[in-house]
Amino acid sequence: MQKIEHIGIAVKNLDEAEKRFGKLLNTLPYKRESVESEGVITSFFKIGASKIELLAPTRPDSPIQKFLNKKGEGMHHIAFEVADIDLQIKTLKEEGFILINDQAKAGADNKQVAFIHPKSTGGILVEICQEKNK
Amino acid sequence: MQKIEHIGIAVKNLDEAEKRFGKLLNTLPYKRESVESEGVITSFFKIGASKIELLAPTRPDSPIQKFLNKKGEGMHHIAFEVADIDLQIKTLKEEGFILINDQAKAGADNKQVAFIHPKSTGGILVEICQEKNK
Repeated sequence: MQKIEHIGIAVKNLDEAEKRFGKLLNTLPYKRESVESEGVITSFFKIGASKIELLAPTRPDSPIQKFLNKKGEGMHHIAFEVADIDLQIKTLKEEGFILINDQAKAGADNKQVAFIHPKSTGGILVEICQEKNK
Repeated sequence: MQKIEHIGIAVKNLDEAEKRFGKLLNTLPYKRESVESEGVITSFFKIGASKIELLAPTRPDSPIQKFLNKKGEGMHHIAFEVADIDLQIKTLKEEGFILINDQAKAGADNKQVAFIHPKSTGGILVEICQEKNK
C-alpha cells in the first residue's frame, strides 16, 4: 500500500455536504462524478496527497443508501493506492483476506478498484485502487 | 487542513490488530504509545505521508471502550494536520463547528490536538493536530 488515496464518506445530501466539508477543509470540491453501476454520485476534495470522497446515493437500492439506513452518515471506506492491483488482490487472498471483488473493476476518478470485506479487516471496508493509465 | 495526518481505528485487541494491519499494509508498526488520560494504547503504521493509528482501550471507562461497545471495531476518527491549531480552532468555531476541546491539548505522537464534534461534521469525529515543536 503506497498511500491513503482517499477516505470515502457517506452523506445524505451532496449539496449540503459539499458546503459543510468545504468549510471544514477550507477548499472547494474539484469534481463530481456519477458511478451508475453503484447508484452513487461522488464529490472530491484534495487534501495533501490524499482526497476526501463524498458519496451520496442516487437510488434506493444503492449500497450507500443501505449504509445510510443502517449506520447513518459517516466514514464509509478507506482507500489505499497500490502499484499493481492484480498482484495485490492475489497477495491479499493468499494472506487470508476476503475480497469482495475477485478482479479489479472500474471505479470513480479513473481508477481500477477492488474492495476487501470488513469481516477480514476488523470492521473496515477497505478499497485498493490503481490509476487506469499507470 | 494540510493533509490527512492519520486515520484512527478502534480495535479490541492491539496484538491481533497489529498482525492484521501489518499483513494488510505490508509494513510493521513503528511505535506504541499510551495516552493515560484517554485510557488508550495506540500503535502507529506509516503509509505514505499519513499514518494508521490503532486504538485499544486500557480500561472500561475509556472513550474507545465506549465506542467499541456501541459500534464495534472500525474507523474511529480522521485527523488533519494544521499549521496553527489555535487559529484553526478559532476559525472553525466562527464557521459554526462545535469543538469538543476549546483549547488544544496534548495527544499521542508529540501532537497538540483538538476534536470537532461529529454532530457538526455529519457524523464524523474529526481531529485537528499540530506537531508540538512546530
